[in-house]
Amino acid sequence: MSFLTPVLVAVVCILIVWIYKSADRRLQRKKEGTPTPPWVDEDLKDTTDPQQAEEDADEWPEVEESVELIPYYHTRYPEEEMATRSREFYELLRQRRSVRSISEEQVPMEVIENVIKAAGTAPSGAHTEPWTFVVVKDPVVKHKIREIIEEEEEINYMKRMGRRWVTDLKKLRTNWIKEYLDTAPVLILIFKQVHGFAENGRRKVHYYNEISVSIACGILLSALQNAGLVTVTTTPLNCGPRLRVLLDRPTNEKLLVLLPVGYPGKEALVPNLSRKALDQIMVTV
Amino acid sequence: MSFLTPVLVAVVCILIVWIYKSADRRLQRKKEGTPTPPWVDEDLKDTTDPQQAEEDADEWPEVEESVELIPYYHTRYPEEEMATRSREFYELLRQRRSVRSISEEQVPMEVIENVIKAAGTAPSGAHTEPWTFVVVKDPVVKHKIREIIEEEEEINYMKRMGRRWVTDLKKLRTNWIKEYLDTAPVLILIFKQVHGFAENGRRKVHYYNEISVSIACGILLSALQNAGLVTVTTTPLNCGPRLRVLLDRPTNEKLLVLLPVGYPGKEALVPNLSRKALDQIMVTV
Repeated sequence: MSFLTPVLVAVVCILIVWIYKSADRRLQRKKEGTPTPPWVDEDLKDTTDPQQAEEDADEWPEVEESVELIPYYHTRYPEEEMATRSREFYELLRQRRSVRSISEEQVPMEVIENVIKAAGTAPSGAHTEPWTFVVVKDPVVKHKIREIIEEEEEINYMKRMGRRWVTDLKKLRTNWIKEYLDTAPVLILIFKQVHGFAENGRRKVHYYNEISVSIACGILLSALQNAGLVTVTTTPLNCGPRLRVLLDRPTNEKLLVLLPVGYPGKEALVPNLSRKALDQIMVTV
Repeated sequence: MSFLTPVLVAVVCILIVWIYKSADRRLQRKKEGTPTPPWVDEDLKDTTDPQQAEEDADEWPEVEESVELIPYYHTRYPEEEMATRSREFYELLRQRRSVRSISEEQVPMEVIENVIKAAGTAPSGAHTEPWTFVVVKDPVVKHKIREIIEEEEEINYMKRMGRRWVTDLKKLRTNWIKEYLDTAPVLILIFKQVHGFAENGRRKVHYYNEISVSIACGILLSALQNAGLVTVTTTPLNCGPRLRVLLDRPTNEKLLVLLPVGYPGKEALVPNLSRKALDQIMVTV
């Protein structure tokens, strides 16, 4: 019998270690959850739980099943008027340009409120309306925002320089100086709410929140152009968390876009570029 | 010595299994790389390389450095007119509703072209204009689209049923029947181009392509409302690849949104729901 002992011990030991290491690994996996690659910009990441998203319908349900249905009231124009209206709307919007030189002149707050109300009519997944528009007028706060963004920008550019062996510092420098953050009378910071809270306090997933809030942003840009105000669409890289804390927004809100809004500066310049023709963006089947 | 043998065997066995299992785990991790959870809808995933995106500036550069700068021409309205224009734009847009009952009546193609031209004025990361609007009028193709979407929808709902033990099939059934895909005279499928191609044939990253295309979608929704047409914003789950192949779009294009467009059906109903008030979506600092 005694010659069996070492074999028996060996088998038992193998089993114990095998089981222990397997359990260890399961634990590890559980801890890791869905691992986040360290180089993903947290602000740009849509943290909507995709496992839950799969349970969502393809359509953006605007209704709880209990919501009453009412007749839809429709304004119909004669065909000729439809053509005119759609042409004029295009003519208005094609004048829009990203303007980086913004005057210090104040803008009427009523107009800012109206363009944000317009943005708030956007559709959203399950009618969650997952947006917060933070309107910054306070010069001190505007300047703090500028400091945060320029600091992060400088780091970004320095990293790029290191990689690309660029030596013309001056040329790059203009890229991270954002004077409009001080001069624009209003900054609109658009936050997406990546989740909300149900009545029982549990997290409520906001399906397609990034798409919804970007659609609202598109409506906002149209409304600004219609009112005769200018802006430039910016997505401050890596600044989201610091700006969120500065503006005292809750952790379920992530910065999506920052729009400096105002009148154009005197002698504002824009790049002389063209847009794609209709046949380059539209395909008919 | 012989009483030591079982202990020695035990130690050796423990070591061997420990090393083997650890190596096994490292291999496993390597294989997984940045693991993609199998349940993430590939179409909704923005496949822009985030490592590259980090190199991007915070601002959406519209310019190659060589592009000439020209004076910006601005239309300025008196303050009172700005207030009126912004109020009227809001009044127009707040009439917009997601309408799921769409009449078979044809719409003027000139209007469809104008609303897509308007959408094409959206800003985009590095002025890449990463959008394709596929306008489907052919009844056969519309019906094929319907078949694909209803098939996937049915699978989605069945999965949900399985999980939730729902037995009322009939009630759910109405959820995956998309009659408007046949009746709407026009379907607009908006594709985002996740990358383009540089002159040397290499992939050119399209920064922020999902945000850019969603902004264009917001402008499109405004333009449709302005022209007196209705739609419903849908994001067909899991259908992107099949619809892309059906419509013969290249692999760098991913379906973002599908809009059935037309006049509302007779006696179209909408849920009786309200939107958040201004003070719920706007914060002033």
